[in-house]
This record gives sequence, structure tokens and C-alpha cells, in this order.
Amino acid sequence: MTEHDHSAPSPEDDFIATWFRPIATHPGAFGLLDDAAAITPPPGCDLVLKTDGVISGVHFFPDDPAAAVACKALRINLSDLAAKGATPLGFLMSIGLPSGLPPDWIREFARGLGDDAANYRCPLLGGDTDRNPGAITVYVMALGTVPQGTMVRRAGARPGDVIVTTGTIGDAALGLALRRDGGAAGRLGLDAGMAAHLHCRYLYPQPRTAIAEALRRHVSAAMDVSDGLAGDLAKLARVSGVAAEVSVADVPLSPAARRATAADPGLMTTVLTGGDDFEVLATVAPERLEDLRREAGGAGVAVTAIGVVAAGQGTRFRDADGRTLAFPRPSYSHF
Amino acid sequence: MTEHDHSAPSPEDDFIATWFRPIATHPGAFGLLDDAAAITPPPGCDLVLKTDGVISGVHFFPDDPAAAVACKALRINLSDLAAKGATPLGFLMSIGLPSGLPPDWIREFARGLGDDAANYRCPLLGGDTDRNPGAITVYVMALGTVPQGTMVRRAGARPGDVIVTTGTIGDAALGLALRRDGGAAGRLGLDAGMAAHLHCRYLYPQPRTAIAEALRRHVSAAMDVSDGLAGDLAKLARVSGVAAEVSVADVPLSPAARRATAADPGLMTTVLTGGDDFEVLATVAPERLEDLRREAGGAGVAVTAIGVVAAGQGTRFRDADGRTLAFPRPSYSHF
Repeated sequence: MTEHDHSAPSPEDDFIATWFRPIATHPGAFGLLDDAAAITPPPGCDLVLKTDGVISGVHFFPDDPAAAVACKALRINLSDLAAKGATPLGFLMSIGLPSGLPPDWIREFARGLGDDAANYRCPLLGGDTDRNPGAITVYVMALGTVPQGTMVRRAGARPGDVIVTTGTIGDAALGLALRRDGGAAGRLGLDAGMAAHLHCRYLYPQPRTAIAEALRRHVSAAMDVSDGLAGDLAKLARVSGVAAEVSVADVPLSPAARRATAADPGLMTTVLTGGDDFEVLATVAPERLEDLRREAGGAGVAVTAIGVVAAGQGTRFRDADGRTLAFPRPSYSHF
Repeated sequence: MTEHDHSAPSPEDDFIATWFRPIATHPGAFGLLDDAAAITPPPGCDLVLKTDGVISGVHFFPDDPAAAVACKALRINLSDLAAKGATPLGFLMSIGLPSGLPPDWIREFARGLGDDAANYRCPLLGGDTDRNPGAITVYVMALGTVPQGTMVRRAGARPGDVIVTTGTIGDAALGLALRRDGGAAGRLGLDAGMAAHLHCRYLYPQPRTAIAEALRRHVSAAMDVSDGLAGDLAKLARVSGVAAEVSVADVPLSPAARRATAADPGLMTTVLTGGDDFEVLATVAPERLEDLRREAGGAGVAVTAIGVVAAGQGTRFRDADGRTLAFPRPSYSHF
């Protein structure tokens, strides 16, 4: 037997050092050279914790750009933090990768992740890397902070509140429909720019981090719209013990979504129940609505009133003629 | 169209309420009825954060008991917290389940998870449930606490320190070998009790939570042994900038491992490099060793000196004749 030095870094160590250490800028990440991260919580703050993940073939297409996969995995969590009024603090990530990914895949994945970590000021704190023989799996656990006791809850809607949403609804679900049906854009009369808009909205969620503080200050309840507006509003109303009524004509649509639904009115069901919007759905007392709208507008985020909260229970979506819409499946579920 | 009430809980909501809400006893989990958890960190404490997961076919056998899968997913994280000197605070969990699991699987999984959450005082704070067409995937993100600035690091070993390990080494790797080769127990002369001991050590890691405080008080560096004693000690020595020398004869073995390695001395490589031990590997100044041993012993955990830290670099394992062992693969990697 010969003298043997076991101290050479393993392939996994090299992989982590090359691709992920540069993103682990928080001092408590210890350069990813320890077994765990340590953070000193900001004084007077609560930590807001969220975990969500994406699986190839379930939440994204295996040939989606690797950077978009990284962005989606992180942003779906940042979207929740934003809706809860929280400022990002950092995240942990567990990835399972099949062997045989193209060499550029991990480089692009790390680039997308690093850009987002910098832009959202949300550094990587730690994680875990495994081979997964089946799908690409990316799980993120994100931490945010709010002043103690101020996390925005789902269960705070009160009768008389106005129901609002940020941005536009339905784009991502329509982008997914286009992705699945190459001829749909032509049939719906969408030009290339409109089709690209919908595709991008599916690939790149836009967490509303910029209005977290405004939400904390003004809304009575909030959540992000990930499983479809209809189903998510039903959840919010149910845990708040109230009824919700939405005027479908007031739901904000992008020009692309307006054209698509004009060409095929049946697509309104996709818009209202398709999910992946990652906009903020909130309820706000009428006297706070204008302050919320102004502060969000100042941060570049449109806030649109779409309905009202009432006593009772149940969620109704009414069209311009006052008829209540029925959805065969009010929300999208990956379960 | 008819009036339609979207407010009925979804199958996923029902699933979570039935199986996981009872484990989410922390008030900041909001009964799993919100989008995120909120915790007020204990004053004067740092939070220690760790994520790790298990994938069927990679980290466990698809027909392992469901309760053991849940326990392993949680305990491999609790083992890291313990080695870092941290007291468990709570955990988040993301699970991806193929369809078609036997009906009892999830019941047993939740039972195992709930028992552990109670026993280790580590409640479920939140999580995510998806269908995963490939493997069963269970990722846990565990949070622990230490008094500010006291997380036990990997990078603290100093020349002159004694290298110690808790419990016994190699049982889980031998249990895995038995699991893969039904005839091995007989060939190695293991009785039924010994074979069962090794199997159980593979299925049920024993996080050394009970000695977290003693570690914090006495050791200079620590990590848990998850990828094999040889490779993990090499990592600890490398980040500490020191050399490590282990006397193989002093590595603590269970009676079952002693008999197996006596029957087949080649199995010492499996013992020293096989991984899944989930014991604590630590370095301690000689004058603190007896205090550590006494306090750990008081908590029911044996601490054994196996070697010394020296100036320089490299990790050497010497047998009883003073020869240095060479390992073709010093640590097990799932990557």
C-alpha cells in the first residue's frame, strides 16, 4: 500500500466551488465550505420562510433555458415572500440533476441564479447537490424578514375590502398554451411580439418584491397567484371566512391576453384558472386603496381593483352581463 | 351557467390538512393555511440552516418502510444541526410523490415524520407537495439555533487536537451491503440480531442532538459523518488547514461490524469510506477531551478518540502495524 492523500476536493466539491460559491456572498454561508449556514437575524424582525420547487416535466419543459429554470425556482419563492410583505434575506437550494446534461446547462443555470441573487439581493446561503436519475429537480427555501408581527396573512380579508391584483393576469397560462400548441398564436391573431410576451411571462415570473413594504402597510390580506386567480382567491376567502365577488371585465389583461381572449372567449377560463401568474392578490380597505396604488405605482407596479369582499362565503366571478362564470377546475394543481 | 362555489378545498389542501397539519404545531406555521411561515427568532441566537434530501433509488430503496424514509429525510438534517452545536427549531419539507403509491405509504410516512418532529422537538413549519413522475423526493430544510456566534465550524481544527467520533462507525454502510446482498450476513457469520442492527443503522440515522451543547462548549471543529469517515475527515482537515492521522484500530465498531470485518478484512474500507454513519466527527483540545466525554456520556453518547491533528496537510489512516491505508474512493458521493 502506498501513502495516499485523501485531501483532494471531490468532484462535488469542485462543482459547488465553481458554480455556486460565487453566489454565496452572505458571510454566514461560509463560502459553502461548512455543513450549514449561520445567520444573525436582524433585530426586531420575524423571519418569513417559504419552500417551493420545480421539477422538469411537471413545472417546466426539459428544454426550457437553464437560466430560466434557475430563475423560476428562485422567483416563485420570492413571489411568496413579496406577497407576505417580506424583504428577501437569502436562500438555500437543493438540486437533483440527471447525468448527461449538456455541459452548458449548469453554466447557464448558475448564471441565471447568480443574476437573480444579485438583483433581488438574496444570496445563496447553502444547499445540496445530488444526481437524480429521473427529472431535474430544483427546490429553493427562501428566507425573508418583516418587522416583528407584520407578515401579511391570507386570513385577513374583511367584508367591504376591495380585491386587487398587481400586473396582468393570465399571461403565463396563455404562454404555456402557446408552448404546447405551435399553431395557436397564428389562429389567435397574435403577432410575434405578443407571442413572445406570453412566452416570457411563462418562463420568467416577476416577483413583486418592490411593493412588499407597501403591501405590509396597506393590505388586509394577500397571497401570490400561483395556481390561478379563481382558485387562489377562493383559498384566501375561505381562510378569511368571507365571500368574494370579482368583476371579470375588471381583471387586468395584457394586450396579448386581450387579443387572445377576444379571438377565443373560451380562453378566459385559462386566464382566470391557469396559474403561474405570480402576481399579488390582495384585499384592502377602500380608504387605503389609493395609497396602495400610488406607492405601488411609484415602484413601477400597477394595482387594479377587480372586486369586493362581502360577508358570507363563496367566490363568484361575474361577466359584463352580470352572469356568474362556472369553472370546471378553478385552479391549476401540480398535485 | 350556474352559480358555482369555488371555495371547496382542493385535493392537495385536503392531503396537507389530513397528514401534515397535525405535525405543524409551531404557531408560526399558521396551521399550514398560509403561504409562508413566520418565526420570531429567539433573542441572542443565530439561526443555523441546513437543507438535504433523499431520492428513491439514490438514497433509499423504493420499498424501504415509508416511516423510515420520513425519518431519514429529517434526521440527516438534524444530524448536521447537532454537529454544528444547534438546537432544532423547526423544518420545512418539499415532497414529490409519484402517483400510484400504496394507500398506506403516506400514512406511514406522516406517522414517522410526526413521531420524529415530536421527539426531536422540531415541528413542521411549512412545505410543498407535488406529483413527481420519477422518484419519491423528500427535501428538508431544517432550522436550529445557537447562542450568537457559537456555531461549531468545520474549519477550527488545530494541531495537537484529538480527533474523536461519537457512536460506532461503518454500521450503516455494512447494513447497505447486507441489503444489496442477501447472502452476505450468512457468509460473514452475523447472527440475526447483528444483521438487524446493521439494517436499522442504515434505515434510521441517530442524530446526536443530545450532545449539541457539549460540542458547542468543548470542540474546536465538527461535522457529521455522512459521506464516509475518511472523506469527511479529509474535508475537515482541508478547510482547517491541518493534517489528520487516524489509528484504524481505535475507530469504534459495533459488535456486528467487528465480526463482519474479522470475517472479511476488506470490509474495513466499507466501514471507513461507506458513509451514512451520521455520527459526529470532531476535534478537541486534549485538556477538554475528558469534559466532552463525560458530558456526552451523561447524554448517553459514547465519544472515542481515534487520532490526532498535526501541522501540515493530508489525512492518513494507519493500521495496527503502522501502515497507511489507501482507499480507492475515500468517500461516498451521491453526486
